Amino acid sequence: MLSARQISFIEGQQVARLATADGNGVPHIVPVCFVLIRENVYIALDAKPKRTTTLRLKRVLNITENPRVSLLFDRYDNDWTKLAWVRLDGDAEMLLGSPERQEALGLLRERYAQYESLLPENSPVIAVRISHASSWGDLG
Amino acid sequence: MLSARQISFIEGQQVARLATADGNGVPHIVPVCFVLIRENVYIALDAKPKRTTTLRLKRVLNITENPRVSLLFDRYDNDWTKLAWVRLDGDAEMLLGSPERQEALGLLRERYAQYESLLPENSPVIAVRISHASSWGDLG
Repeated sequence: MLSARQISFIEGQQVARLATADGNGVPHIVPVCFVLIRENVYIALDAKPKRTTTLRLKRVLNITENPRVSLLFDRYDNDWTKLAWVRLDGDAEMLLGSPERQEALGLLRERYAQYESLLPENSPVIAVRISHASSWGDLG
Repeated sequence: MLSARQISFIEGQQVARLATADGNGVPHIVPVCFVLIRENVYIALDAKPKRTTTLRLKRVLNITENPRVSLLFDRYDNDWTKLAWVRLDGDAEMLLGSPERQEALGLLRERYAQYESLLPENSPVIAVRISHASSWGDLG
């Protein structure tokens, strides 16, 4: 579903933005660290400071009520001929204990050195199952 | 509603991300240029290349079905002690012909030199009426 250029663009980004919506369709958006593995994006509920416990985060409550999510990977530049984005839409699933979750945590630790002390073994992971990809601009 | 630090952080960003959701609660996310005026954020449907006419854009269709939106202004840094974001939630309204729209277009042209040739006088504008602000991290 994803082209080589889309994959390369996504892998070149350090941060993405995740939009969820609650059961009443009220949207919510957060910046996220991520790893793309085949046609799944994995996002950990890590140990960066938060205002509530991880499983009470609004993104988690929304996914439980409504699994549809949208992820944006974009590049801004003052030269607007260089603007570009890839958007991935799909369904999110909470991973609390599977081997898939362990694999994702390992790859997140490889991708972000900062996770060395911020990603406990028991961190929950959001898996986004991509159902649609779109992109715009010069993916370069 | 917004603190001086939140306003200063938002004004320091060149790009924000806008999340909308359709009438079924399916979220959608796009990067946007913006201007903050008092407790409104204005986003033009400008002349950057798009895949459809401006009023058929998914963000516009969603707002028509469901005015609730969420806007994220964030800063990523490899030093995670410098991560920060401000999120504004509210209701969006399409401005097609009002004096408010003209004022917003003028301020967008001041804010983005790139708009000189990309913001026709008749550009529609999305006005987001902010109802809630939240923030995280080192806005300083």
